[in-house]
This record gives sequence, C-alpha cells and structure tokens, in this order.
Amino acid sequence: MGYEGGMPIVTFGEALLRFSPPGFRTLEQATSMDVEVAGAEYAVAFSAARLGAPARWVSVLPDNPLSDLVLNQARSQGVDVSHVAKTAHGRLGLFFLEAGATPRPSRVIYDREGSAMSRRPAGMIAWDAALKGARYFHVSGITPALSPACAEETLRALHAARSAGLTVSYDFNYRGSLWSLEQARETQRPFMDLVDILTCGAELLGKLLGIEAADERALAKAAVKRFGFKTVILTRRRETTAWKNSWSALMLHAGAYTESADYEVDVVDRIGGGDSFVGAFLAQLSRGGSPEGALRFATAYAALKHSMPGNLCWATQRDVEHVLSGHDMRVQR
Amino acid sequence: MGYEGGMPIVTFGEALLRFSPPGFRTLEQATSMDVEVAGAEYAVAFSAARLGAPARWVSVLPDNPLSDLVLNQARSQGVDVSHVAKTAHGRLGLFFLEAGATPRPSRVIYDREGSAMSRRPAGMIAWDAALKGARYFHVSGITPALSPACAEETLRALHAARSAGLTVSYDFNYRGSLWSLEQARETQRPFMDLVDILTCGAELLGKLLGIEAADERALAKAAVKRFGFKTVILTRRRETTAWKNSWSALMLHAGAYTESADYEVDVVDRIGGGDSFVGAFLAQLSRGGSPEGALRFATAYAALKHSMPGNLCWATQRDVEHVLSGHDMRVQR
Amino acid sequence: MGYEGGMPIVTFGEALLRFSPPGFRTLEQATSMDVEVAGAEYAVAFSAARLGAPARWVSVLPDNPLSDLVLNQARSQGVDVSHVAKTAHGRLGLFFLEAGATPRPSRVIYDREGSAMSRRPAGMIAWDAALKGARYFHVSGITPALSPACAEETLRALHAARSAGLTVSYDFNYRGSLWSLEQARETQRPFMDLVDILTCGAELLGKLLGIEAADERALAKAAVKRFGFKTVILTRRRETTAWKNSWSALMLHAGAYTESADYEVDVVDRIGGGDSFVGAFLAQLSRGGSPEGALRFATAYAALKHSMPGNLCWATQRDVEHVLSGHDMRVQR
Amino acid sequence: MGYEGGMPIVTFGEALLRFSPPGFRTLEQATSMDVEVAGAEYAVAFSAARLGAPARWVSVLPDNPLSDLVLNQARSQGVDVSHVAKTAHGRLGLFFLEAGATPRPSRVIYDREGSAMSRRPAGMIAWDAALKGARYFHVSGITPALSPACAEETLRALHAARSAGLTVSYDFNYRGSLWSLEQARETQRPFMDLVDILTCGAELLGKLLGIEAADERALAKAAVKRFGFKTVILTRRRETTAWKNSWSALMLHAGAYTESADYEVDVVDRIGGGDSFVGAFLAQLSRGGSPEGALRFATAYAALKHSMPGNLCWATQRDVEHVLSGHDMRVQR
Amino acid sequence: MGYEGGMPIVTFGEALLRFSPPGFRTLEQATSMDVEVAGAEYAVAFSAARLGAPARWVSVLPDNPLSDLVLNQARSQGVDVSHVAKTAHGRLGLFFLEAGATPRPSRVIYDREGSAMSRRPAGMIAWDAALKGARYFHVSGITPALSPACAEETLRALHAARSAGLTVSYDFNYRGSLWSLEQARETQRPFMDLVDILTCGAELLGKLLGIEAADERALAKAAVKRFGFKTVILTRRRETTAWKNSWSALMLHAGAYTESADYEVDVVDRIGGGDSFVGAFLAQLSRGGSPEGALRFATAYAALKHSMPGNLCWATQRDVEHVLSGHDMRVQR
Amino acid sequence: MGYEGGMPIVTFGEALLRFSPPGFRTLEQATSMDVEVAGAEYAVAFSAARLGAPARWVSVLPDNPLSDLVLNQARSQGVDVSHVAKTAHGRLGLFFLEAGATPRPSRVIYDREGSAMSRRPAGMIAWDAALKGARYFHVSGITPALSPACAEETLRALHAARSAGLTVSYDFNYRGSLWSLEQARETQRPFMDLVDILTCGAELLGKLLGIEAADERALAKAAVKRFGFKTVILTRRRETTAWKNSWSALMLHAGAYTESADYEVDVVDRIGGGDSFVGAFLAQLSRGGSPEGALRFATAYAALKHSMPGNLCWATQRDVEHVLSGHDMRVQR
Repeated sequence: MGYEGGMPIVTFGEALLRFSPPGFRTLEQATSMDVEVAGAEYAVAFSAARLGAPARWVSVLPDNPLSDLVLNQARSQGVDVSHVAKTAHGRLGLFFLEAGATPRPSRVIYDREGSAMSRRPAGMIAWDAALKGARYFHVSGITPALSPACAEETLRALHAARSAGLTVSYDFNYRGSLWSLEQARETQRPFMDLVDILTCGAELLGKLLGIEAADERALAKAAVKRFGFKTVILTRRRETTAWKNSWSALMLHAGAYTESADYEVDVVDRIGGGDSFVGAFLAQLSRGGSPEGALRFATAYAALKHSMPGNLCWATQRDVEHVLSGHDMRVQR
Repeated sequence: MGYEGGMPIVTFGEALLRFSPPGFRTLEQATSMDVEVAGAEYAVAFSAARLGAPARWVSVLPDNPLSDLVLNQARSQGVDVSHVAKTAHGRLGLFFLEAGATPRPSRVIYDREGSAMSRRPAGMIAWDAALKGARYFHVSGITPALSPACAEETLRALHAARSAGLTVSYDFNYRGSLWSLEQARETQRPFMDLVDILTCGAELLGKLLGIEAADERALAKAAVKRFGFKTVILTRRRETTAWKNSWSALMLHAGAYTESADYEVDVVDRIGGGDSFVGAFLAQLSRGGSPEGALRFATAYAALKHSMPGNLCWATQRDVEHVLSGHDMRVQR
Repeated sequence: MGYEGGMPIVTFGEALLRFSPPGFRTLEQATSMDVEVAGAEYAVAFSAARLGAPARWVSVLPDNPLSDLVLNQARSQGVDVSHVAKTAHGRLGLFFLEAGATPRPSRVIYDREGSAMSRRPAGMIAWDAALKGARYFHVSGITPALSPACAEETLRALHAARSAGLTVSYDFNYRGSLWSLEQARETQRPFMDLVDILTCGAELLGKLLGIEAADERALAKAAVKRFGFKTVILTRRRETTAWKNSWSALMLHAGAYTESADYEVDVVDRIGGGDSFVGAFLAQLSRGGSPEGALRFATAYAALKHSMPGNLCWATQRDVEHVLSGHDMRVQR
Repeated sequence: MGYEGGMPIVTFGEALLRFSPPGFRTLEQATSMDVEVAGAEYAVAFSAARLGAPARWVSVLPDNPLSDLVLNQARSQGVDVSHVAKTAHGRLGLFFLEAGATPRPSRVIYDREGSAMSRRPAGMIAWDAALKGARYFHVSGITPALSPACAEETLRALHAARSAGLTVSYDFNYRGSLWSLEQARETQRPFMDLVDILTCGAELLGKLLGIEAADERALAKAAVKRFGFKTVILTRRRETTAWKNSWSALMLHAGAYTESADYEVDVVDRIGGGDSFVGAFLAQLSRGGSPEGALRFATAYAALKHSMPGNLCWATQRDVEHVLSGHDMRVQR
Repeated sequence: MGYEGGMPIVTFGEALLRFSPPGFRTLEQATSMDVEVAGAEYAVAFSAARLGAPARWVSVLPDNPLSDLVLNQARSQGVDVSHVAKTAHGRLGLFFLEAGATPRPSRVIYDREGSAMSRRPAGMIAWDAALKGARYFHVSGITPALSPACAEETLRALHAARSAGLTVSYDFNYRGSLWSLEQARETQRPFMDLVDILTCGAELLGKLLGIEAADERALAKAAVKRFGFKTVILTRRRETTAWKNSWSALMLHAGAYTESADYEVDVVDRIGGGDSFVGAFLAQLSRGGSPEGALRFATAYAALKHSMPGNLCWATQRDVEHVLSGHDMRVQR
Repeated sequence: MGYEGGMPIVTFGEALLRFSPPGFRTLEQATSMDVEVAGAEYAVAFSAARLGAPARWVSVLPDNPLSDLVLNQARSQGVDVSHVAKTAHGRLGLFFLEAGATPRPSRVIYDREGSAMSRRPAGMIAWDAALKGARYFHVSGITPALSPACAEETLRALHAARSAGLTVSYDFNYRGSLWSLEQARETQRPFMDLVDILTCGAELLGKLLGIEAADERALAKAAVKRFGFKTVILTRRRETTAWKNSWSALMLHAGAYTESADYEVDVVDRIGGGDSFVGAFLAQLSRGGSPEGALRFATAYAALKHSMPGNLCWATQRDVEHVLSGHDMRVQR
C-alpha cells in the first residue's frame, strides 16, 4: 500500500517551542535552556510520518525564524506543511519545563497567550483542500482550549472531516491551565458525535464525558454506548517515581477489550508520550494494521518515547520491534 | 557620603529575558540558548548599584519563576526591588538574539507583546513612596513605547520626580520595532520639559527632537536651547565590523562640551552598552563626581561592557580605573 | 508578622566554592567543572531568606572576584551580608566533588586550608552589632573545626547570642577531615550549655555528646537531660543506592517526640540537605510556626534539595506545600 | 513562476558527517566534537531549496541512523531525497575539522574511504527518472574523484543531463587529498564539453583546464573559447588572517565580465562558502534571475555563510537583501 | 616486587574512537558527540597500568592526530606504546554509541571497516621484541575477528607467547557484528590449546566452545577438561533495567570454584566492564596476588567501571578497597 | 641521535591547575570553568617531549586526584615524572583566568599559597639522580619566587646542574604578584653566574639584571658582558588588541644577533607562549639544531601556541614547518 494519492493523516493544532534548563536545574538556576519543538498534534504528525505514514500538519504560525525552526523539524520527517498559514499577527507559543526528580514533579509553565494560532481569524483554513486525499483526521482537546475562535474552528474541522468520510481521532489531552473541567466538558461535548477513535488518560475520561462507572472497562463501555465511538483507548501511567514510570493502555474496539503490555520505563523525558502513542496508532491503522496490533505497537512506541530527550519520539520501526520481541536490554551491537 | 537615607537612583522600566543560541548559531540552528536578564532601566539600576550607588528598580512582573530569576539578579547587586509589583496578568517579555559576524548584523526578535508591564493598570505604582529619598530618576524611551498605559505612567512618573526635586535622566533608546519615529517624537515631546539629563545615540537625536543642525555640537546646543536640558549626551558607536566597534560620547553641560576618549573595542556582546553608560554616569554623579569625570568614567565602563557576554556590565571600579589609566592589554596577574 | 526591625536569623560560618566535573566524571577525567557556592551556615541563611525569613550571614572573605560571586548569590535571596568582613589575608576555601554512582560513593576533596575565615584575627567581628535585632543564631560544628581562632570565635558568638536573648541553633555537621571525633567532642562540649536547638545526623549524636543509649529516642532524651536542650533533632539518611536515598527526622521537643515523613528521593545532588533542613526549620519558627510543623516542613524542603544540582536549595514554599499535600509526581502544568 | 511540475535543480554527490572539536581545540585536545552534515552537492541542493528553488539531491547512503541524520537535514529544507539509494555496503564518509587561528590554518582530515557512494555499482541510478522535470544539473569535481566508478557515473549523469536538455553546472572543487592535479585534469577533461556553467577557485582554473593566461579575465575568456562554456565563474578568497577573509567572484557570461562586490567577512566557519555560492546562483537563475543579478546575490549569500557555524548556509533571502542594500552592521531590531 | 626488568603484561588489539551523543540523545538527534578512546585490549592495558602493573599495548594505527589522541591516553597511565606501528594505510576504527534507557537498549554502530589494524601485513610485528620481559599476554576474540590477517597474527602471537613462557589470557568478547558464532568457534578453536586463562560472558561460553552442560559450574569444568585451561572465568551481567545492572563472576581454578560478590550497580556507562575486569585481574596476578583475591578485586573494579563515563575504568586502588570493605555509600569527605 | 641513555632535558618547577570561565565570562559570571594543567617548567617539559626530546619534570605534588590529572597530562607526552615527589602536606596551586577582550585585559588570580611545592623541605630532591644523563636543565624565576625554601632549592639545583656539566637555561618569567622587582633582582643575582641561556621578556630584562642600555641589542650585549651568558634571548610581544598580538624574539649568541620572524597572531589563548618557546628552543638544541634555527623554530611554535586553548602547546613539528614555509592560511585538506 502506498501513499501516492495523498497524505493519509491530517492533524490540526498549535506548535510551541519548549525551553528547559539542563541537568535538573530549576528555572531560577537556569543560565541556558535546551530548545525543543513541541505541540500535541504536531507530535502526532511527526510520529506518523516517521513511522512511514506521511502526515499533514495544519496550523498557524507567526512569520519569524522560530517558526522556521518548527517547520524544519516537521519537514525533516516528511510531514507536509503546505497548509500551515503564516501570519503577521501573534507570537509563537512557548513553554518552560523544569524536569523533576522525586519528590519534585516536573513542572510546565506555559507562555502561549497571544499565539498566532489562538488568534486565528475564523475561516482561515480551507478544510476541503487541507483534508483532500486523507483518511484520518486527528485533533486534541488542546486546540479548542486555546481560544473560542479555535474551538469554533475545531468544530468546523471535525464536520469537514466527517463529511469527507475520514476517520476522526480525538485525544482529550486535558490541560487544567487552559480551561476548567467544566468548560472542557461543555465545549467538547458537541465534538463527541463526530469522533470515531477517542483517546484519554484513564483517570480523566469519566470526568470529561460526565460518566461514572465502576472501573475502566465499564467506563469505556459506557462511553461507547453513549457517544457511539468505534474505538475508545484509555492510556495509563503510574509515576512510581520521577525517574521510573509505567505505561500501558486499554482499548475497547468492536465490543472487545485489548490490554497492551505494561512497560516499566526509565524516564529521560516523559513529555510527549501520549502524542507519540496516537501518532503510532494511526500510522499502524493507516498501513492496514488491526486495531489490536496498532495498540500493542503504539504502546511500545510511546514507552520508547520516555527514553529520549525532547517532546518528539525518535524511535524507529526497528526499535519498536525489538521491544515487542521481549526487550532484551543487552547492548545492541 | 553614604546612602543610608535611601536609594540615590530610581529607574522605571520593563525587564526581559534574552535567549540567544551560542556560537553564532542562527535561531534556526539553535538546539539550546543562553539565558540572560535584560531591560534598559533594569540594566541602569544594575550598573549603578554595582558601582556603589544603590538603586531602586520599579517595574511590574508576572508571578512566576522567570520573574524570580530577574529579581535574583537585581538583588545580587543590591538593587532594591521592593517597588516591583507582581501581577497575575501578563507575561514576562522575551527577546531572541542572533549574534552576528560581518556581513551578518546581530538581530533581535522581540517577543514582548502582552507583557505584565505593558498591561499595567494606570496608577498601580505609588510614586511618592517609590521615589522617597532618591536623588535621580531615570527612564528610557522604551517604557512609553510599550503601550499607551505605559506612556501615561511615564508622564506621571516624570512629574512626580520633578515635583520631588529629583534630577531626571532620560535616554531616548529608540526602538523602531515598538513605534515609528513620528510616534516617538510626538509621545515624548511633553516629557522633554521634565528632563535634566538627556542621552541619545548621536545619529537619532535630531530626528527625535525634530531639530536640524550642522553637526553634533550644534545639535546639542539647539537641544539645550529649545528644551532647557542641563546636560545633553550623544553616544557614538561606529561598527567597523561586527567584532570591532568604537565607542565614545560627547556631552554639552553648563555650556561646555566634553569629549570622551574613543574606545576601539573587541565585541563579545554589544547589547547593553548604552544602558551601562547611563548607569555608570548617574552612579558617578550621585557619588559627587563632576559631569566631566562621570562622562569619562561611564564611557570607559560602557566600552568594558562589550568585552563580556550578556546584557549587563559586570566590570568593576578597578576595571574602569585600569582602562582610564591607559588600558595596557598585558595579562593582569 | 514582619521583619522590618531586623534580620530574624543570623548565621556564622565559612563559604566555599565547589567545583565538580559534570556527568559523573571523576576528577582525573575532568576538562571542565561546574561551580557552585557552598558553606553550611551560608546555606542555612540562603534557605531561610528564600523562604521569607531574611537572614544575616556573618563571615570573613578574601578580597577577590570569587568572593563577589559568593556575595552575589547570598544577596540574590536577600541575605544581609553587611557583616561579612573582607580581608587581604587568606584564600577562599574550595572543595572538589566527584558525584558518585553505586558502588562508587560521592567524594569530597577539601582545599580549604589557609582560608581567610580560618585565619581571622580574634575579635574581628562586632557581635553586638551583628546580632542586633535578631531572634535566632545558628552555627555548625564546621566553624570551630576550622582553626583554634575559629573555635574561640564560635564560643564568643554563642555567648553573645545567649546574652542577647537569642535562640541558639547548633548543628554538629561533623567532618572527619577537619578534626577527630575526640577533638570535636572536647571542643564543642562547652558550647552545649549555650545551645537551644541541637541538630545532628542520627548515627553520630551519641559519639559527639559522649552518650550511649538504646535507641534514637533514648539518645535524644538523654541529651536533653544532660545538656538542657529545648529541642533535639536527629536527621536520618539511608543510602539505598547512590541515586536513591531516604530522608527523615526525629525531634524531641518539650518532652514529646515528632517523626517526620520518610521521603524516598531521587538523588540529583545530595550535598546540602542538612543545611537546607536547618534553614527551613528556623525560617518556619521565626514566622511563628510550631516546632512540629517546622519539622514537617523542613524535612520536605530538605527532601526537595536532593532534586536539584548544587549545594543550595532552590525549592519554593509552593514546592514544599505540594510535597506535604501528598507529592503526586504527575507533571505540574 | 512555480515549481509544481518538478524539482528545478538536481545535484549528485556524496554527503559526509563533519566532526570538529569546539573552541579551536586541536583534535588531540578533543573530548567532544560538534557534528554537522556536509557534502558539496548536498550543500548546493540545501541552499537552493532554502532559497525557494526546491532541489533533488541524488546520492548513495549506507543504511544506518547517521544517514538518517543526513536525510533529515536535507528534507528539513524541502530537498527531495527520493532518489537517494540506501545500500548495505559501505560506510558514511566522515571528516574531521580543526578550526584554525593565525598562524595555524584550519585543517581537514578526511575519513571517507570505503564510503557507500564511492563503492556504488555502476548503473545503480536511473538518471531518466532522477532528472525528470529538472532544469539544472549540478555536480562537482569531488564526485568523480571518489572512485573510478564514481567518475564513470559522473560522465553518465552529465550525458543524461545534456540529453534531457538541462543546463549543466560544474564546480571543480579540487581536493588534493583525493587525486593529483594531473588526474583531475585528465579525468575531467571529457566532462568539459558537457558543461554550461563552470565554477572554480580563481587560482586553480588554469591548472585544471591546462590553460595559461595573463590574468583572470584572459583565463576565463580562453576557457570559454576552448570549451564553449556559457558561463565561467571564478571565485576569489583572500585569507587576510584565519578570522578575516575576503570573498568575491568574477563572471564571464555572454562575452561580458561581471565583478561581484568584494566582501570582507568575519570568519565563524569558512567551510562550505563555495557550495553555498553555487546553490544560490542556480536558485536565482531557476527563478528567472539574470546571471549578473544571480552573481551579486550568490556572492552575498556565500559571504553570509562565513558568519555561521557548520557546512551549510542558513542565511535567508532577507539576510541577503540586507547585505546587498549596504550591509549596515547595526543590530537589527 | 617491581617491574624494572620489563612490562609484566602485553596486550594485542585494535583501538577505536567512540562517539556518543550526550544526554541519551539518539544519533538522529545528535548535534555533538562525546569522544572516548576504546578498544578491548587497549582497555586491559590501561587498567593494568593504572593499577600499578605497567603494560605494553601492541597495535597498528594510521598516522594522524586521532591516533595521537589514542596514544596520549595510553601513555598517560604509563602504558608502553613503543610497539605500536604507524602506517599510511587504513583508518582508525570508530564506533557510535547510543546510550539507552529502558525499554531502549544501548546501541553500538561500528564503523571499523578498513582500519589500519585489520589491514596489517602479516609479520609486521616482531613478537620476540614485543614480548620480551613480559609475564602475561592477553588478546580477545575481537582481534582475530577483524580480518583473516588479524586471525593469523593472533595465532602467531599466541604461539610466540607460549614459546616465551608467558601466561596467556584470552577473552572471547564475542561480537556478532564481526562474525557468526560458527566462524568464531572455528577460528578460535586452535587458539584454545595455547590459552591459560579463559574469560567469557557466562551465556556464551558453551556456544563458543561447543560444549553443553547442565549449569555454569559444569560448563567451566567441561571446558577445563577438554582444553586444559588453568583458569576459567565466567562473567555475569543481569540487566535489571538500562540503569540498574548486576555484575559478578565465577572462577574455576585449580579444581576449585570461586564466586565473586554480586554487585548491583548504577549504570553511568556500562561499556568496557569486561575489559576492566581482565585488566584488574591480570594486574593483581602480576603483583603476586592469588587468583581468588584477584577475582574479588577485579569484580569490584569492573563494578566501579559502570559508575563513570567512557570505555575506560578510572577507578583507583583506593576505590576498590572501599568497595571491598563494604561499599558504604555515604559521601567520602 | 637518540635519547636511549637518558632524558636530555630536566625542568624544575610547580604545576598548577587553571580554571577559567568559558566565553569571556568574568569570574562573577561563572557557572562552570574549563580546567587546564599549567606551570611554567611543566609546560617546557611538555613541549620538549612533544617535539621529540623526552624531558623529565621535577616537582612536588600533594597526594590527591588533582595531582594525578597533572601527572597524566605530562605522561601523555612521554614526560618522565619519576622524580616528582608526592607529599601529604600542602595543596595543589591553582589560578583563575578571566580571558579578556579589548579594553579589558585578561586577568589571572593566583591561589597558590600553601602549595606542596612551596612548602617542600629542603633537600627533598636527589639532584644527582634527577639530573643523571641529562644535557639541559631549565628553571624559571617563578620557582625561587614561591618561597625561601624554593629559592634555596633552585640554587642547589643550579649548582648541581653546572657541576654535572649540563647546559643551564633560565627564564626570568617575572610575576609581580609573587615578589617585587627588587626581591626578584636580589634573589636571582647569584643564579646568573650559573646560567648559560637566559630568556626574558624584552621590557623587563634591564630591570631584572640592573642594567641600563640604549636599546635591546645593547641590553643583550651588556648582559652577556656582565654575566657571561652564552645565549641571551629577548622575547617580544605587542598587544595590538586582546585578540591580535604579535610575537617575535631577538637572540644574542656567540656575538651575533638573530632576529626571528615577527608573527601577528589571532589570540585564542595567549597564556603559555613563553614556556612553549623555551621548550621548543631546548628541544631543537638537544636534537643538534643550531641556536639560530632553534630560535626560528621556537618562535613559530610559540606563535602557534596562541591558536589553541589552554596553557600548553599542542602544535606539532608539521605545524611548525607549515608556518616556517610561509604560513599559507588556506584550509589544509
């Protein structure tokens, strides 16, 4: 199967630059900061393209060299950026990350107010063109949280994707600093009818959908029942310590539950695990993989994300296969 | 003479964090950036305090760890920050610096929109308290350029300073990215009547005051005549190359011209030279120095600024004295 | 409660610069070293001031730029350094740290011989002035160990503090490289009558006081009985591995024992934990906190110290509160 | 004019990784090295694409992560790499660079023996497909110097390009470490009939073509006469010192000579200047620029290359325009 | 016992440079790499010399500054390099290391093809001179795997060592990227008769000798029986996670089994553990230590290797003694 | 000519570690420092050995890992350190270097008080053994300046060297921070009768010998006349700017003057130029070179020193030959 006829996956969301002091320094101790490109939907496209499923990332950027840095990184993996608008208004969003060590959790300080994306005039994106030839559309709950204009555009995008017959993927990706749980629930409820694949951190799904259930399985079942999702995925992270996490996922698809392996990981950088998961999951589906296989693959890929610095997952197909084959930790020579 | 009774110098303006990729990398090449604290009036207070004339810096900062980094650096030199307001609204302004090499000039990309300082509600600062016990007040043209509210506050501050009998220092510090020459001229004209010591880059003074003159001396004379300044200082920089500049100043005070030495400097980092100059000039005055001696001292101090990285001048009294005594470049052991 | 009338806490001791090769390099592998400011009583003042209880640090420094680096860092947190004497005699003490990994313990190589502090002429410090307005005085066993002159000055300081009605805090901080257990016991015995709050690593208290007891509680009780301390605190560290320690404290105060939580910490840098503890404990007391609350707060603060590089604790009030509220290790956004 | 129908420029040559110790360290002093992607024809494609003329780079790479690093960088600027073959045989060529300071010149130590490119089996590249839709083909004298197989393939490529009606650009790029002047002259003579645009360092053109002439202009004229080139460009560098070079070019085109400006540059990194020149020249031509304008543009662009680290030129259209407009060295804000 | 009369230990093998991106970056993420000297037999000589048993390292190097870096490092510990041949043919072998974090294992990508050592003309080394005065000769299975010429030279060396009455040490050091298990078994079988001390990773010994046995002890016994080794050592590593390994060894010598302690180590860098073990083991023997004491010492030394970056073990006699005395992990002051 | 029979050159003096903040930071701005090994006579031995004239360095070091770092670096070039005494008393001397930029000169802050070398008990060195087989002995004016004991030992060493028939080299190397000109003159006068080759910075020779003369040539002549030196060398440095120096030397030998070339150098690091000069000069003599040739060689070598960081000169024979052949600054490929 090839992708000649178009980009199989389209994602929509803001990119940010991430600044973090090296060596577990706090921000007050910083004299230099490492710079990484970030952004939930950006990372999904990056991972998908890297794994062989070329993706298009749709966004709005200010016209400056920092945006070029963002674009270069996307293009380096073959992500199509031809539908990224550049404007003279607004900034590139940033965030500052303090990497933690037990008992100090990692901390993110957002500086994304006034971003070009959040200010975008409604209707700036030609969704017909942007979705042309695609099979999957992905957006996360961060995009509608950016501003009312972004929430509106998200809805337009979801409608356009459904109309065009795409499979729609949505990750709640709840950020308490952007909106309250109530706002999130209310704004996103209309989206739910347009979603095929819903991904969410296990501990928040109930709150965001307004569902109570006895356990995770019951919760997934209730979600499917109420909203008609084809696939519901709960991702689970256990923070044993700051440097030792475990990561797994539970999927309900076509009435059947699938449990991924539960990976205990050494944490080099845990940011971006969920986005890597979605990127790999969609990449596998778009290449004809089964949802069950995609879940196993994507969980391993997201586990690998923790082993490298930055927001993006640089693991390869081969790395994932090594993990799936038993993840022997001897030096690979 | 001591400073027990108060802070001799008060400055008012925004602080920013500066991010710059090391090793002459362009922003697109950046994988890490050096972090420095910046801000014109912040730097004036820093230099003055460092040279033994404790100063108070008045400003508005958002309540986050980046602001603490700014405050720590000020306090490290004894700058009084008790009149810096912290608010929940707005960001800390940033800028990105690409250090240049001939024929590529250094480039600054500002990201200061929406800063806490620019959004400050009028009347937030109690100028009576903030100026209490002070003898000099300094502000630069960057502050009124930030927003109409800041322009208004600048005028309030200047009036308060004059009413309290302080000597008022003003540095045009024109930034084309913040406003046009016309806006700058118009907004600042009412300030001029309240200014005692005016500092400006030699090439811009005429345009900012709306004066034409045959040469720099005539220009200074016309400025004094028209606005009644006690002291006018023109700073002069010649960019022979990116790494080799020369720096000098001309002063008209009490009817007499004083020319500083003309320093040819190796450029490690040229940002902040002018602010260092003003800080040193006021420090010298406040310690009872003559304007002529202050000019000589401050020019040497600003020349030294070019020899060290960052926006602030870490030269010492001893360093300046070495330069003034003939600046022998042998290793000092 | 405010601190307008004076510095609530005064500490007395030597500052050092710490040099350590990054990345677990041994000293023989070093091509560069990270530089940090250190010093037990310096760190106590730093932590107290950072937590909102302005402190005065009393010491002796040689007159050179390295000392300025030490002073800048103290002043950055508002520590009052007006009673630090600068002399032309002696050096700034240094130490070299090799960060360890199991089974290689971290190693400190001191280079503090001939320091300005250790050479200080008796009577150089005006204790009446230095202690004016203070409520707490703190010194550790490192100061008297530096030299006979320092031991003598410690005794003078303790007497002055008691005479002035201050609460006296003492941390044994035993360093085998400076003196033997016998010397330490003998020199410090006369100090004990002047101490209100005694802090000591649990494993050494008996040896330093010359007391034998069945267990830690009995030991604390015997110490109180023999020397009349108001408060005895035993700090406990368990080095599970070089990168995983646990940290807790036991306090006997007013006849009652208080146990802190026992924190298992990821070790970024374990140096300075004890000093951070004392700084936070005194800061809490000076703000009117109960000894029990102060113990809980200070233990969490010291646990946080392990999560950041350097000798000083940059944790904030907010960080401590997060830990005390259950220390969830999710990313704080 | 758009490029929808194809890649306007195709280049053919080896990519290498460059390792260089930072801070003017010699290789013997190295404990770390900066890593950059290099390669003459790779750099031409990179610069052209960056300046808006998408290019295809044709090459052979071994199948490993270092090659991915090479590909990522090319793709980041939109360079088409779909005709880069990956093989299991051979290595990625490397070189080690010691950056110089007068009187020590910079030194390159090649480690490119056994590279995948040099070992490539004849006929591995489908030139019809690789050149489809292109208007310019570029290769330099490094490619045929790699191995007899590469020399043969170069000839095939040149024939294919001419047959397909492309304009052929050739840069002698003589490397004494790869072959002797005699070998270079003999091997490349047959190529000359197929070349439209010939670029060469001024001091070597005569020796490589076997022509003697009184001066540079006469030399260019004789070259055109003998080989029928449409355009001959002589690039000139004067190494005043290691850190101060001048750079200019002379072109003979359609019987007329054009002299570029002569740029005196601060040398951050002089490697890659010539390749940047060619990339910019072809990009300008392909966008419909005149050869004279292209020469002026490309010389400025190559001058800018010296101001940034690495083998590639990250200057932008805007940077070049600033230089062409008089290259004021004031900070651009 | 002194070593005046000669070098007690001679080793024979290739040196390589190792390049690895810092901070757990993957190779694709690299912008700089740390440089370390590596090579199995090189490391054995380095460790032996460092521990007081001067060693001679015999090898072949190309004539360039990278080789000087290799030689400098060896000489820095007193390793005798007077029998290292420099040739104009061939390269210095390299390898690239990606440091892993669970579930991503560390990965080594070799780039040693065409090395000067692998191309060496037979008979280039004068073994009589090279072995003069020595008591131990060591080579590992990497040397014969490099090329048929190296395999031949290994056999010559082993014969020469036996003829000269040296004790011969051999470490299988199997590298799957250099040859298959079958090739390794076949090529090395003739060597076995010439070996006194055989070291091997526990999991591979059976496969390499073609022996099946119920457990490790039986395996060692069978090996001794079949090949007449004086000493067989099985090293055991358990990769609990990428950052937590355990390390121990089992020895069969003179009919008796010795078990070392089992060290759980924090992994800073696990490469080179086995070579450090052999170096320390031979150093202890050459200083008159018993095999049992040498085993205990060498296991502790190899455990210490994991705590420092690079391929070489910089631990000291004192460090080992600290570990052997119970390895208390308190800070050593 | 070979050196089998002994070390041709013996030097005597203290080693120090040098700490300097990177990137032209002042000490107050330092957060890390680069570490280099330094020491005048150490550097002479290093350079001589590196250029093929094995040397012995005689000194006293404290017993710690920093000393091992010093020894490793010496041994890496084959310097014989078997006559370096290790003691339990005293420290390793340090110095801190701030690298300058015009108008800020580089600054050295010594921290060498209490060094093991300066405290050495008289008679600790067995000069008969230490000088055995040598042909040249070198010491500089820093050694006697360290302490009266060191001055005494210098005299003993000079007598021993003369008695043993060695050629004695002396470099005044005046350090104003160690002693006054008067002390230097008085202490060293007795040494002069024992010196064959005297080296001195041109501007200080007259003051140190107590000679007045019209010009440099006359000064050299008078020195020879008064003290009977075989060779007098005046080294000349002109600090055009901090980053641009010129370096040359004038020699009077056997009644004839020789002028070296005058090198204009780019200054990466100017420390150690003079010591490199002496090392190269003696190496050339010891290899049978003429004084005139040695002067030319050594001046070029010292000029090269400026092009690399650190106190030691890593230039090679080949580098010097390149400079002597006209120092073309093109990239050497």
